[in-house]
Formats: sequence, C-alpha cells, structure tokens
Amino acid sequence: MQADENKISEILPMRWQGGIGLKLLEVNTVNETRKKIDLFFNREWNKYEELDMEKSLGRIAYEDVRSSIELPEFSKSVVDGYAIKSKDTVGAGEAMPVFLDVLGHVEMGKKADVSVKDGTAVYVPTGAMIPIGADGVVMIEYVENLDENTIAVYSPTAPGQGIIQNGDDIKKGEKIIEKGKKIRSQDIGVMSAVGVGKIKVFKKIKVSVISTGDEIVDSFGKVEAGQIRDINTWLLSSMAVESGAEISLKLLVKDDFESIKKSIEKALSVSDIVVLSGGSSVGSKDMTAKAIEAVEGGEVFVHGVAVKPGKPTIIGRVGDKAVFGLPGHPSSAMIIFKVFVDYLIKKHYSMEEEKIFIEAIAAENIHSAPGKETYQAVELYYKDGMYVAVPIYGKSAAISKVAKSKGYICIHANKEGIKKGEKVRVALF
Amino acid sequence: MQADENKISEILPMRWQGGIGLKLLEVNTVNETRKKIDLFFNREWNKYEELDMEKSLGRIAYEDVRSSIELPEFSKSVVDGYAIKSKDTVGAGEAMPVFLDVLGHVEMGKKADVSVKDGTAVYVPTGAMIPIGADGVVMIEYVENLDENTIAVYSPTAPGQGIIQNGDDIKKGEKIIEKGKKIRSQDIGVMSAVGVGKIKVFKKIKVSVISTGDEIVDSFGKVEAGQIRDINTWLLSSMAVESGAEISLKLLVKDDFESIKKSIEKALSVSDIVVLSGGSSVGSKDMTAKAIEAVEGGEVFVHGVAVKPGKPTIIGRVGDKAVFGLPGHPSSAMIIFKVFVDYLIKKHYSMEEEKIFIEAIAAENIHSAPGKETYQAVELYYKDGMYVAVPIYGKSAAISKVAKSKGYICIHANKEGIKKGEKVRVALF
Repeated sequence: MQADENKISEILPMRWQGGIGLKLLEVNTVNETRKKIDLFFNREWNKYEELDMEKSLGRIAYEDVRSSIELPEFSKSVVDGYAIKSKDTVGAGEAMPVFLDVLGHVEMGKKADVSVKDGTAVYVPTGAMIPIGADGVVMIEYVENLDENTIAVYSPTAPGQGIIQNGDDIKKGEKIIEKGKKIRSQDIGVMSAVGVGKIKVFKKIKVSVISTGDEIVDSFGKVEAGQIRDINTWLLSSMAVESGAEISLKLLVKDDFESIKKSIEKALSVSDIVVLSGGSSVGSKDMTAKAIEAVEGGEVFVHGVAVKPGKPTIIGRVGDKAVFGLPGHPSSAMIIFKVFVDYLIKKHYSMEEEKIFIEAIAAENIHSAPGKETYQAVELYYKDGMYVAVPIYGKSAAISKVAKSKGYICIHANKEGIKKGEKVRVALF
Repeated sequence: MQADENKISEILPMRWQGGIGLKLLEVNTVNETRKKIDLFFNREWNKYEELDMEKSLGRIAYEDVRSSIELPEFSKSVVDGYAIKSKDTVGAGEAMPVFLDVLGHVEMGKKADVSVKDGTAVYVPTGAMIPIGADGVVMIEYVENLDENTIAVYSPTAPGQGIIQNGDDIKKGEKIIEKGKKIRSQDIGVMSAVGVGKIKVFKKIKVSVISTGDEIVDSFGKVEAGQIRDINTWLLSSMAVESGAEISLKLLVKDDFESIKKSIEKALSVSDIVVLSGGSSVGSKDMTAKAIEAVEGGEVFVHGVAVKPGKPTIIGRVGDKAVFGLPGHPSSAMIIFKVFVDYLIKKHYSMEEEKIFIEAIAAENIHSAPGKETYQAVELYYKDGMYVAVPIYGKSAAISKVAKSKGYICIHANKEGIKKGEKVRVALF
C-alpha cells in the first residue's frame, strides 16, 4: 500500500482520525508528528547519481558498497626481516642459533619470484610480498649475517609471525560503506584502498523556501519605514543546504491567499520539499494551510504541534511532496526546521539519526512550557573541565542571539524545566 | 622582522638551536612543533575573495563584519494591541478602566502616519511600527472596544511594555561576525537581517598531496602482484578539503630522490602547502628531508616529533610555503595531518581552535608510549546514558579500522596510559 494513493482517512490509525476525522487536526506531539511524516513519506527515495569516488565527500551513500577484492591482496611482511619456514626456527635461541641459506630477496612492489624451501630464507623489507613456502618473518634484529648466503637466527618464529595475511584487513565481499552513510575522508581512503572508483550517492533533495509577510522585503534592496528585511529565505535555504539538500527556488510573497497558493504551486513544480515561513498569527497560519489544501491533491495532516517554540507548525503533502509551514520568527523557524524538515531530508537519505551531542551543565534554571516539548537554544562554554550551557533568551527572537547559539536542548513534555546545575544534552546546530 | 627573510638559526630560540644548531633537528614535542609552526608561518594570510553572502556558507570570514544599521530599524510592537502613552493608563484596573479615543491603526509594513496624543490610542498588530508619541502597547486582551472610536483599557501599561525598540537586537556598528569564524546558516541569517550582501572570506589555501613509494600504484588501474593501491593521496586530499583547503595537485611518485625533489618543486609552484607521505622507514624519511632541502630556499625545521604514531614526521618550508612529510601508514598520516597540517590551515584562517569534543568512558585500558604524546583512534558508542570510547587497534594500520573511527583521544607524554573506565575526551575526525 503506498501512502500517496490513499486518502489520509484510510491511512491514519484510528486514534489520529478520532472517529470522525476531525481530531486529525488536533495538536500533535513531536513524536506523533514524526510518525505521521514516516507514514506519509514512506517510499524508498530512489534518486541517485554515480560519482567519481573522490567527488563523493560529504554526500550520502545510496547503497552499501562492498569490496570486490581482499585487502591486502597478498600476504606481506610487517617488518624488515627474513621470510622463513617457522618449523626451521624451532629451538633457536641466544645460545643456539639456527643457520639458514639465503636464497635472495623480494623487492618492494614486485612479485616474490623466489620460494622458500626447508632450511632457507628470503630477505623481505616491510610491505614486501611473502614468498611461497614461507609462513613467518624473523626480524633482522634477531638475525646475524654470517656471509652473503648464510644467516644465523637467534629467535624462534611462530607461524604467521611478522606477516599480515591477504584479506586480514578487508575480506572479498565485505561491506565497506553502509547505505545512508555520509562519506568522510576515511571512506574515501577505504574506497581507494580496494579500487572502488565510482559510488552511487543520493541525488540531492530539492527544496524551495518561501517567506510570506506584507512587511517583509528583499534584504538588499530599498527598505521603507515599517518594512523589515527578509531573513528566513536565506536562513532556511542555508539550513537546507547544510542538511544536504539543494535549493530550487527562493520566493518572497505577500500575505495573500492567491499569492501564497501560486508560489506553492510554482515551488512544487521544481522541488521535492517546500518550506514556507511567516506570519506567526493564527490567521496567517490558517491561510497557509488553506493554500496548501487549495493546491490540487493537497492535504494538510499536521496543524499545530505541542512544541515550544513552533506550535503553529503545519505539515501537508501534495502527492509524494512535502509542504511545511514554519513559524515566522527566525529562531522558531530554525528549531522547527531541525526537528521536522531536517528529519524528513535525512529519512529520505536513509541516514541514521545523528547520535552526537555534548553533555553540559545548565548555567541557570531553564523553564519549559507545560505539556509541550520545549526546545531552548544555548551557548556553550568549556570551563573548569566541563561544558556549560547558557540558555539564550531574546525579546521576540532576536537574530543576534540566534547567531550566538551553538546548539539546543530539548526538554520533554512531562518534565518541568531544567534546574541550574542539572546535566543537559546539547544537540549542535 | 619577517620569518622568511632570515635563516632558521636567527629565528629559533637558543634552546632549539642547541648552541651549535645541531639539536635543531632533535625530536620535538607536539607543542614545540606547533610553536615552530607559529614562528615560521607568522605572516598575516592576506588572500581573500568577496562573495555574495549566501555563497559564503562554510567559508571563513576574512575580517570582522559590522552592521551599518540598527536592528530593528524602527520600534515595533511585539503584541497585537493599542499603542498608548503609558501615563494615560496609570491606575487602570479590572474595576476602573481608562477610556481612550482610537485615532486609527498602523498597517503592517507601512510607516505609522498617525501620532498618539494624550488620551488617545492607535491599533498596532504584532510587528507593526510604533507611532510617534506612544511609549507602550496594551494587549487587546486587556482592552474592550466600546464603539468604533473608543476603547476601555483594564490594565496599566509600563513605559516600553509591548515594544521592541530600534537597535534592541543589533546596534549600528556592532560586530555581527568575527574574523576567522566559519560561516553557518545563522550567520547568513544575521547578514540578511542587516542587509550585508557581500562578505570577504579567506581564499582557500592550496594544498598539494604527494604519495611516495615504489610499491604504490594508481588505485583504479592495473595492480600487479606485490603492488598496493594508493590510499594516502585520496585520504589526505579529502582531509585537506574538509579542513577548508582546495587541492592543486595529487601526485604519486617513486621512492627516488630526483623524482621526489621534482614533485615538490612542481607542487610548490602551484600551492601554499605541500603534503608528502610514504615510506615509513628512516631511510626514505631522510630522502624526503634531503629532497626538501635540495629545493632552492628549502629548510627542514622539524625532523621527528615525540608522538605516537608519527615519530618520523618532517616539517620544512620554502619561503612562506610549508612542506610536510607524513608517515606512510594511512592511520598515522591521518593523525599527523590533524595535529599539524589542519593546525596550520586553521592558523592561516585565523580560526580559533575548535573546542568541541565528546567526553567518554574508556572501554578498556589504553596504552601510551612513554615520553611521547600518544594519539589513539576510537569508536564511539552511546550506552546507558554515557559515551563509551573503544580504541581501534589494527595490525599495521588496517584501513578498515580507520574507517570505523569516529575520533581520537590524546594521551599526554607524562601520563601512563588510560585505565578502563577513565574519562577521556574524544576529538572528532
């Protein structure tokens, strides 16, 4: 059953439908909202591109990458020494060396074209191929050269000693990169080690960002009294890029039903996700929701989330495309982007949720909104051997404060704030 | 006095010169090595480019950015309500309202073209400009509309209440981005908020990466028995990109004095930093050092660092360009790159050292090398409310292990290893 072929009422669990479908639009918790996102955007995201492996840095693996070879491809010496048969060195010691005939040496980067027979040895530098017949390498420190063709070995050598066997590092067929992994330098290293020259990565998801508001004007044009420069278009499109998306369109529209509806349609025609933000009042939020539903095939399935900040959040879909309505205040929009839009982008990319956060001590009491999940932006300092998280409060979401925040903490709905000195987990922006 | 116009002997503190200049090449600690890097590459890095601000995401600010305007540019209401003179509401209460004449309203995004006089009020929606004469806004919740032109106010309003003043968020001339800061989405938001359309960022430092070794061949070409695919060229150039550099050249050369010298000269002609890696033996390290010194103007000032892994690290300079000789094992090269090359790149960019690390519990005892700073790559898990760091050991630096490492810990030279259960700080790769 594919989500987009069915009406919401047929897909949503009864609890969400509330019997008559009306409670569908009740305020959801953050987890319920995420579950709905999972439910409605549950199709395999199957857009990929194949890149030269060195160009994949920072991109997301579209499928598991496996090695077609063993690494190392041949058994090699990890020391400078003599390749020998270990049984020939049994009993060797300081007082009683074993004498072996030297048959030659192996050159770095060359095939070992001599084989070790009973009572003989072949010189191998570190990294050189182990000759056939040898099962150990005795380090030169335990060897005395008696003449050009004879050595005395003063230490027993166990089978396998001084050797890294072919396949010891990576087996043929072994998974070297997992689907959904963000490619780092180390992964580039591993791919080059086993000769993987190309890799399939997810195509970048296309995001359009629309800011609405009668008072909002182009940030770099003329600004009349009473008007304010657009922040959200730039802020949210940059966040989308940081989440791994690419920007199709950036639009600035007036708080007007037809303009909003048309801008959504325009954005949908060129992108996978549309992010609107603006008008924090209930009226303008309703307009956004109605505009989404006025688009052919448009449905709104989240209308309000029990979260602070960001209660008036709206999420809808048009076919398999998502439309988000975020709060107008930049700091609130930023949080809701992280909590839901970034979540959807990473879900499409099959990325595991990032588990890296910083444990810190709350520098002061942090209040939470009863019954709501509360997100609080914080500054982070390292002091006296520990991190300290300082909540950033600003009158009406001052942008200068937002710029200083290193990350945010989440206070669960059933928890009554954070006490000064309490341990908190800071997710980094 | 500029570093590159003088011989090493004139610049280095006597302690490093060791009286007769011979101890110059003694093994340095990590801190001594960094101090030498500071000393020799102490010139202001003055290469910049000016970008449209939205294209600066991830780049490094070349200079402080200041606001040329106040934010907000006008005093505005933070609530839906009536702009009033606060003195008119003194004594207002549930039982005794104050009556005011309504002179009109302010439209969003428009200049307030009506002013508030004694005994009057003007309607202002959230975000609208405060009219001249008003010094407070009373929320509509405390107001009753008696007729079209009269309201009853049931609550006193203090001066400034309900208003965000012009400049409350950002003052004119205030620093909004600091030199050396990596531009994040929040910074893009702040620049758009104050109309900064262009920003100067550091030009990317040009890095060339050279791998040496007779056994090393192109990763994606034909590999004969005894040969191994090149890892370091790809690994280290990716790391340089992650550090904020751009790659000028990637070269693979044989372990041969003339080839190495020529490759260094070629790389120097197109880059600011040259990173060689290969041959972990003392002999081939000496060859790298000699090749650097054979280049016109070339000097080696670090020849060995008391660090594990990476003892044979070499650092030299040719004019104001740096040449690094890193160990051949990928995992060792990676550590030394982080400890010194990344350090120099960030120094050129005036970046503050990143203070973000994860506190974790050592999953097992971790040994250190006596008298050396020891760096140990670790995996990181979150378990039972805490991070656990598991050291990654690999026979001869297995690349598959490197790929799994999340970060590394540093054990100071005077500390004897880490005990299982001890708290460690993990720097992330």
